[in-house]
Amino acid sequence: MEIVGIDIGGANIKAASTCGFVHSEPFPMWSRYDNLSEALGDVLRQAPPTEYLAVTITGELADCFETKDAGISHILNSLDQSDPRTARVYCTNGSWKTPDEARADSSLVAASNWHALARFTTALDAAFDESAIVLDIGSTTVDVVPTVNGQPVFDGATDVDRLENKSLVYAGIQRTPVCSIVNTLPFKSRNAPIAREVFATTEDAFVILGDLPEDAGNMDTADGKPRTKSASKDRLARMICACPSEVTDEDAKLMSESIAESLASLIAQSINHQQSHHEVDTLLCTGHGGFLLPRIQEKLDTPINVSSLASCLTSEQLRCAPALAVATLLQQHFVAKSIT
Amino acid sequence: MEIVGIDIGGANIKAASTCGFVHSEPFPMWSRYDNLSEALGDVLRQAPPTEYLAVTITGELADCFETKDAGISHILNSLDQSDPRTARVYCTNGSWKTPDEARADSSLVAASNWHALARFTTALDAAFDESAIVLDIGSTTVDVVPTVNGQPVFDGATDVDRLENKSLVYAGIQRTPVCSIVNTLPFKSRNAPIAREVFATTEDAFVILGDLPEDAGNMDTADGKPRTKSASKDRLARMICACPSEVTDEDAKLMSESIAESLASLIAQSINHQQSHHEVDTLLCTGHGGFLLPRIQEKLDTPINVSSLASCLTSEQLRCAPALAVATLLQQHFVAKSIT
Repeated sequence: MEIVGIDIGGANIKAASTCGFVHSEPFPMWSRYDNLSEALGDVLRQAPPTEYLAVTITGELADCFETKDAGISHILNSLDQSDPRTARVYCTNGSWKTPDEARADSSLVAASNWHALARFTTALDAAFDESAIVLDIGSTTVDVVPTVNGQPVFDGATDVDRLENKSLVYAGIQRTPVCSIVNTLPFKSRNAPIAREVFATTEDAFVILGDLPEDAGNMDTADGKPRTKSASKDRLARMICACPSEVTDEDAKLMSESIAESLASLIAQSINHQQSHHEVDTLLCTGHGGFLLPRIQEKLDTPINVSSLASCLTSEQLRCAPALAVATLLQQHFVAKSIT
Repeated sequence: MEIVGIDIGGANIKAASTCGFVHSEPFPMWSRYDNLSEALGDVLRQAPPTEYLAVTITGELADCFETKDAGISHILNSLDQSDPRTARVYCTNGSWKTPDEARADSSLVAASNWHALARFTTALDAAFDESAIVLDIGSTTVDVVPTVNGQPVFDGATDVDRLENKSLVYAGIQRTPVCSIVNTLPFKSRNAPIAREVFATTEDAFVILGDLPEDAGNMDTADGKPRTKSASKDRLARMICACPSEVTDEDAKLMSESIAESLASLIAQSINHQQSHHEVDTLLCTGHGGFLLPRIQEKLDTPINVSSLASCLTSEQLRCAPALAVATLLQQHFVAKSIT
């Protein structure tokens, strides 16, 4: 039985099915929450018809919602209006709720994608050891989830818990303000203190370094100008209050290296923390930020086996992995129920 | 002869005259640059009629402009269209340019307000020693300008130079993203790593601490909701991915204390740097962030005499001090020319 999964986040809607369908759309929840129903409908109409829809939600933290409860309710109501499938909502302890149950008690429903992804990933990779860290490097956040026998160690953890136990790093390869991860940037052999202003995001560094592709039609950037190397260079120039005309391509590359190293350090610190608290010797890497792995590995205290899902999933599936994860887990759930 | 001064910044337009007129308006240059001429006209029509207009410009760094030159030209062209007065533009070495001269060579014109303010401030305060640091704590940036005999030490410095020599701290009491000045926030006796996202700004901390007034009609906040203690608390909650309903007023106060201390530390580091490089024993404080002084003083390596302009200027004049500074300096310039 094919199942479609959907990951309704604060910046993107991602969908995937157990039989190969994948689709993702940018969706800035904070400004477009009133149009969520239409946006979900647009995505789900492209998906194959299925009886069940597996749902994971992270968009409830968007600042358009007064509380997480209000966010969960709005998201589930929008989903009700957009699609006729029977929805099941994934929880941070691995259980499933109906939409009504989820609205009644949202505590285990908020931000469950990391849990689903960790279970899915460990099950998928036959080479993995009994204990592994699942590393998901995304546009806005990074999950660093220790697992034992395929089960996440931190069952039921909220995002606050996960920030504290370092299994969530709230920084990523695209949307993160540069001013939130560096204090200085190299510029013409000097070390320039930065402007604490959102003139640029991490995406600019990775476009300049060639890790993310240019996309001249994409204006979802710090200044609303194109996602090109040239415009990214201008944005980085402003981070040190320089005139864009003063900053060469080579200057911008050095700044970008420094930003990439800072982000890699943040992630490596979390992996080091998990390694010192849990016996794990494999790192299973997913998400679309795999290009950061070599920089991260250089900064680890203890060597670790690295395995990337890139070998068994397409790049679009990697990007939508949490949606694929809940679809697959719901399918397994039904199979298990039919056996017992 | 009365003269009107205008400070055309990236987020505000401020005007003041040598005979007591003061007016400021928020003006987000990055989004409203096409309406700059109208906005300048609105402000200047309220000012008394004068022959001369003294101008200082800092808005050229706004990311709507390809280069600083382009920014200076756009700003001066908009000013030409908005007001019939004869304009003189203040330079970072204390000289004056006509608008045509400024357009032809903008290198000394960009970001000159700190220089004017330092000269004005040292001349105003009769109690000051021969050498002083002029400290201007603003919404977005802080100037920490060492002066000798009333003259700024760093004549002709650009913003890049000033970030490096620590006479410019690009962080302030209102618009600065919280994620750019702290890595963790205290929460229920824990130390919570933060979300690297612009969920809150420094203004939220100071509204909660009572240092800045509530203003329910002001929606110029991180989430577009009101500038009230209650909404500020919600914004701070999101900084650690907490649900606003989980965070008490007391929790929010402790977070705010931590943010205020971080900002004060950044400023104190710059003052310590100037004190170790220049013989200065007085701190002349202006801007509307004077409430931060006690926190800053606690963090200084060497005690320093503190003198606040609050004793000789109104709070509105303090806020518009760079505009008042260029008006006063142009008046002095004409007096000096008439004598020689």
